[in-house]
Amino acid sequence: MAARQAIALVAGVGPGTGAAIAKKFASLYSVVLLARSPNSYETTVKEINEAGGTAVGFSADVQDEASVKNVFEQVAKEFPDRPVAAAIYNVGGVFSRKPFLEQSVEGFKLGYETSVLGAFIFAQAALPHLLSAAKSPIPHPPSLFFTGATAAIKGSPYLQSFSPGKFALRSLTQSLAKEFGPGGVHVSHLIVDGVIDTPKTAEWLKGAPEGSKIDPAAIAETYWALHQQPRTTWTWELDVRPYVEKW
Amino acid sequence: MAARQAIALVAGVGPGTGAAIAKKFASLYSVVLLARSPNSYETTVKEINEAGGTAVGFSADVQDEASVKNVFEQVAKEFPDRPVAAAIYNVGGVFSRKPFLEQSVEGFKLGYETSVLGAFIFAQAALPHLLSAAKSPIPHPPSLFFTGATAAIKGSPYLQSFSPGKFALRSLTQSLAKEFGPGGVHVSHLIVDGVIDTPKTAEWLKGAPEGSKIDPAAIAETYWALHQQPRTTWTWELDVRPYVEKW
Amino acid sequence: MAARQAIALVAGVGPGTGAAIAKKFASLYSVVLLARSPNSYETTVKEINEAGGTAVGFSADVQDEASVKNVFEQVAKEFPDRPVAAAIYNVGGVFSRKPFLEQSVEGFKLGYETSVLGAFIFAQAALPHLLSAAKSPIPHPPSLFFTGATAAIKGSPYLQSFSPGKFALRSLTQSLAKEFGPGGVHVSHLIVDGVIDTPKTAEWLKGAPEGSKIDPAAIAETYWALHQQPRTTWTWELDVRPYVEKW
Amino acid sequence: MAARQAIALVAGVGPGTGAAIAKKFASLYSVVLLARSPNSYETTVKEINEAGGTAVGFSADVQDEASVKNVFEQVAKEFPDRPVAAAIYNVGGVFSRKPFLEQSVEGFKLGYETSVLGAFIFAQAALPHLLSAAKSPIPHPPSLFFTGATAAIKGSPYLQSFSPGKFALRSLTQSLAKEFGPGGVHVSHLIVDGVIDTPKTAEWLKGAPEGSKIDPAAIAETYWALHQQPRTTWTWELDVRPYVEKW
Repeated sequence: MAARQAIALVAGVGPGTGAAIAKKFASLYSVVLLARSPNSYETTVKEINEAGGTAVGFSADVQDEASVKNVFEQVAKEFPDRPVAAAIYNVGGVFSRKPFLEQSVEGFKLGYETSVLGAFIFAQAALPHLLSAAKSPIPHPPSLFFTGATAAIKGSPYLQSFSPGKFALRSLTQSLAKEFGPGGVHVSHLIVDGVIDTPKTAEWLKGAPEGSKIDPAAIAETYWALHQQPRTTWTWELDVRPYVEKW
Repeated sequence: MAARQAIALVAGVGPGTGAAIAKKFASLYSVVLLARSPNSYETTVKEINEAGGTAVGFSADVQDEASVKNVFEQVAKEFPDRPVAAAIYNVGGVFSRKPFLEQSVEGFKLGYETSVLGAFIFAQAALPHLLSAAKSPIPHPPSLFFTGATAAIKGSPYLQSFSPGKFALRSLTQSLAKEFGPGGVHVSHLIVDGVIDTPKTAEWLKGAPEGSKIDPAAIAETYWALHQQPRTTWTWELDVRPYVEKW
Repeated sequence: MAARQAIALVAGVGPGTGAAIAKKFASLYSVVLLARSPNSYETTVKEINEAGGTAVGFSADVQDEASVKNVFEQVAKEFPDRPVAAAIYNVGGVFSRKPFLEQSVEGFKLGYETSVLGAFIFAQAALPHLLSAAKSPIPHPPSLFFTGATAAIKGSPYLQSFSPGKFALRSLTQSLAKEFGPGGVHVSHLIVDGVIDTPKTAEWLKGAPEGSKIDPAAIAETYWALHQQPRTTWTWELDVRPYVEKW
Repeated sequence: MAARQAIALVAGVGPGTGAAIAKKFASLYSVVLLARSPNSYETTVKEINEAGGTAVGFSADVQDEASVKNVFEQVAKEFPDRPVAAAIYNVGGVFSRKPFLEQSVEGFKLGYETSVLGAFIFAQAALPHLLSAAKSPIPHPPSLFFTGATAAIKGSPYLQSFSPGKFALRSLTQSLAKEFGPGGVHVSHLIVDGVIDTPKTAEWLKGAPEGSKIDPAAIAETYWALHQQPRTTWTWELDVRPYVEKW
């Protein structure tokens, strides 16, 4: 297969992990970036194209089924006959950390919906393409990857609007891995345990030892390593954390 | 404290586990039964009252915040000055078992909302009363218990509309246990692994060895045992399954 | 069955949990107490007998197969024809908390052997009796219970001689629950998360809120509640911790 | 650093996973192979050397502290001043699958000792070298990796001599990750869920779909990917299984 004749989609592309994943997968694939606002993906799209890759961005609301389906239709038009080699859901949950009795029903639903409802919609739109790609001559098994959090395995006080959605996402990925593995789609769940080093967290962990934040590029490398696994040897779940993290 | 001078609320009262829990807790408390339809609780209310206990039923939709708050207000009117000694969320998730690609967004949300959104609303309505009861001279620490399922710890194919909600519920109960334990409220999560013996399952597991279904009365006894634990020695989570269950 | 016509064995009887379990089970059974030294069980044996119960103590080293088998033979002589209704392994692991590079091979083995080798030997001696009791008219299903620790589910620095043995014990109890459940033996694993209130820990947690230590009598009540579960509704695992415990 | 100026040690080198790991790590390092018998490593050593790499084999019994220490001393003599970049424990547990009541104390200990005692001894011999390497200019953080099994997280009937040792090994690796991560040593535990494709398993899974066995070379690639992770982004645990595996 010629270079970039297959597609990788990345949903949830801000200046951190999503951008790093898009750049990494752009080494082999044409990449499609999804974010709510063009601001989130424009810089990355530009950087990839300028570096000789192929990237295009779409505005979409992952919680809106029509919006996500629309992106997949546009992608099919823009890149006809190209298999989807990877679909990566990297949308962070939106939530507010607060005492349980101060949490609203809307706040609780919001945490859930941003974490897992969007993942459901994205997976449902992507899977027919990935199943189809499993029968195409692409270099690696088609992959459906999800970025999770420590909150996916541990409930904590004041995180009642965040953690249930991450637990639910983890369950969903396990269901999908079991249902679609035999069909040739590699489903993985990556647990991020620690602070990711992004512009937003630049001021966090001041005074901590050097290297105390997770490197987005290293997350991207880890996803890339999973993507390269042959179907005989697939990872469903792994964790990543900085060397100094307490856990 | 005189007999039945405190209240136990049970949400999700059909002819199985909910009814058994209500009857067990009626040995010490006035019990309040919540279900969507009076059909679900009328028989149990009658049985408890005829046996010398005190029971009252309310129709409520646990996914509707106003509906649940209204029940708590009515309970406060009907039983003024009685502490809430126990609030038990036993509402089963409504879901459809089907291939992921045939699942609708509405079907996915329904599974989540019946499992965990109702639990959120119920817990938020109950906790102020339970925290207050922790300072009252009631015989056992006030308890907030939730009935879960194996699907709370294991994702399975075709259960993508059920299992994520149960994972989420488990997370919620852990958050609550950690936040409200120090305030004196005992939060527990009971994982049911197997078929519960109810009228609905009467025809299931035909030919299996005697005793292959979980006894609702034994679930009630187990909840009762947890309720009696002093605050020095609280169980957050346990499992129950029949002796012949494979796991 | 007349009172105390069945036997409960408790291995690991010091002045804390083991004594409390023995006293609780003495309400229905003749109890046999095992400890390395008579000092550990003499007071409890005396208290049970003086209170109208039946108790006898044996010195045994649970890591020595011959020693444990010998106890079971003596018990069979002393109480012929009495079924064994419960066998409870409550032996704490002996270990030293230290940096990994300062740990000796002997120290590492010691932690393992006290936690899990003794459990293996005790279970193997007890199971033929419990399987036989499952066919006898005893009031509750015969029970094989093990006291575990948080270290059974979480590895920690400096606890490398303790935690692996507790993980191993947890695995063993799960194997046994799955193999012997269908034969009618109830196997449980109780995770103790926190400091147990015993003479040895009297000076610990000074300044902590009242009730910060786990009550041995409440552990005994919890084991008793599990023992009463019918075979339709068995708990394999639960945790207990004080209301103020961080986890 | 010039090519192969650092060392990777692999313990447990038969014709499957161990050989594949040794070959992969030989692309960057001089490799040292440990096995009980020269038969196990001779072919691999020859292949690596003939392919232009550097390999040497040592006979050692990982359960014998003196034997393992002796290897590390010989390595220090043979490769003076070369940092140890990786130490990989891939020794399979020796055990017999049988009913619990037919298991001997010796059989139970054997399973444990081959799984976890050897790991303890190997880790203790390797860690001073790895800690020292963390301060050397080697290309990737020094790594201490362990091959585990599904039996590390799930107890099963008849596997009572295997699974407890694997649970214990998992605990040990977590203790080590937490203690030595801050010192710059990357500790990982890889859960193998399925049959590994080796000469020994050639006749297994006849009739299963193509690709039903785990590829040793892919395990080696996965370890290599973990080894390349920077210290900001380390994986402690992951699983691998074939695409058709039920779990």
